[in-house]
Amino acid sequence: MSKVQVSAFSISIDGYGAGPRQSLQNPLGVGGLALHEWAFATRTFRRMFGQDGGSTGLDEDFAARSFDNVGAWILGRNMFGPVRGPWLDDTWKGWWGENPPYHVPVFVLTHYPRASIVMEGGTIFHFVTEGIQAALERARAAANGKDVRIGGGVAVIQQYLRARLIDELHIAISPVLLGSGERLFGDMDMVELGYRCTEHVSTEKATHVVLQRE
Amino acid sequence: MSKVQVSAFSISIDGYGAGPRQSLQNPLGVGGLALHEWAFATRTFRRMFGQDGGSTGLDEDFAARSFDNVGAWILGRNMFGPVRGPWLDDTWKGWWGENPPYHVPVFVLTHYPRASIVMEGGTIFHFVTEGIQAALERARAAANGKDVRIGGGVAVIQQYLRARLIDELHIAISPVLLGSGERLFGDMDMVELGYRCTEHVSTEKATHVVLQRE
Repeated sequence: MSKVQVSAFSISIDGYGAGPRQSLQNPLGVGGLALHEWAFATRTFRRMFGQDGGSTGLDEDFAARSFDNVGAWILGRNMFGPVRGPWLDDTWKGWWGENPPYHVPVFVLTHYPRASIVMEGGTIFHFVTEGIQAALERARAAANGKDVRIGGGVAVIQQYLRARLIDELHIAISPVLLGSGERLFGDMDMVELGYRCTEHVSTEKATHVVLQRE
Repeated sequence: MSKVQVSAFSISIDGYGAGPRQSLQNPLGVGGLALHEWAFATRTFRRMFGQDGGSTGLDEDFAARSFDNVGAWILGRNMFGPVRGPWLDDTWKGWWGENPPYHVPVFVLTHYPRASIVMEGGTIFHFVTEGIQAALERARAAANGKDVRIGGGVAVIQQYLRARLIDELHIAISPVLLGSGERLFGDMDMVELGYRCTEHVSTEKATHVVLQRE
């Protein structure tokens, strides 16, 4: 069954999904990198960045699973890059180099139109200016029966949660404090939205929880 | 070394330390009981309520440790009971029956004066109307070199955190969503306040984290 899902999304003990002051130097905000230590240590993520080795336990299981059956992605503009406002030129092609780790169509939510970019390895960035519903429709069509994964950031996930469009979220709680930034659950009432925790396991590096909509 | 500490304080995945609508029927707010499943399953807590058995693993270690070396407690008015406003009579003596699980002096923060109550088993409830600093001074004196434990609720812990008076917190993250209620970290910047995570381990029932002020 095709799902709309969030996977391998990391938050801190105090609930932040990204640190403050995102920039070219700190794509995940100040301190945000520490959220993802569990992921970066896995075989799946190391391979993605051309490195050998990596962990093979539960963290790896969740990392691998996060890419299973994903037919299209949706990303917020800020997750695609640090550029704000209109696209001044076509230089910026994401944080991930010529061969991004998506390998499927990626729909980037933005207020500013831009032509699609075909990258190496099957990733195509499409820029959607018509809002989250339009992006999801296009992503669903592109996914061709597979899942649509909402990559983030926090604001984008919250918009899809409020619209009750996300079936499942895998959240990793990392043992760090961020102090400020963007809180994933912010003012969301996850119970009222119909979610409950259906799975939770922990490793040395993270507590993994799966939330599903009933 | 004598500390001011919070121990075995449970929060949900979405960060709530208590559910909404506290009442006589729901001392921990609606859904709040689920936060404490890990604790209620332990030998320490079962014994406290006169029951045999109970878990003996990491959850039990944290439960037992939460009572170690505690010389005095501080509780908020709402944690002491559901009564609001002035004390109409002396009927209400806490949620815990004639022999409460404290066995040391307990300082209850309230705006309304009331005479101290001597309970069985060493617990004495004192009512402090002069604010959190005064309560801490009295608790420190009563603790006589042992730790002062801030029992809660959320609003009281937040006041002591903001005043930078808490040395250490043990928080248990339970695998449930509450959706609404009181968020422990609310608008607190725990990094700015000087805390970092110094310990984290997990069981089937909870993720235990220890936060210490540097």
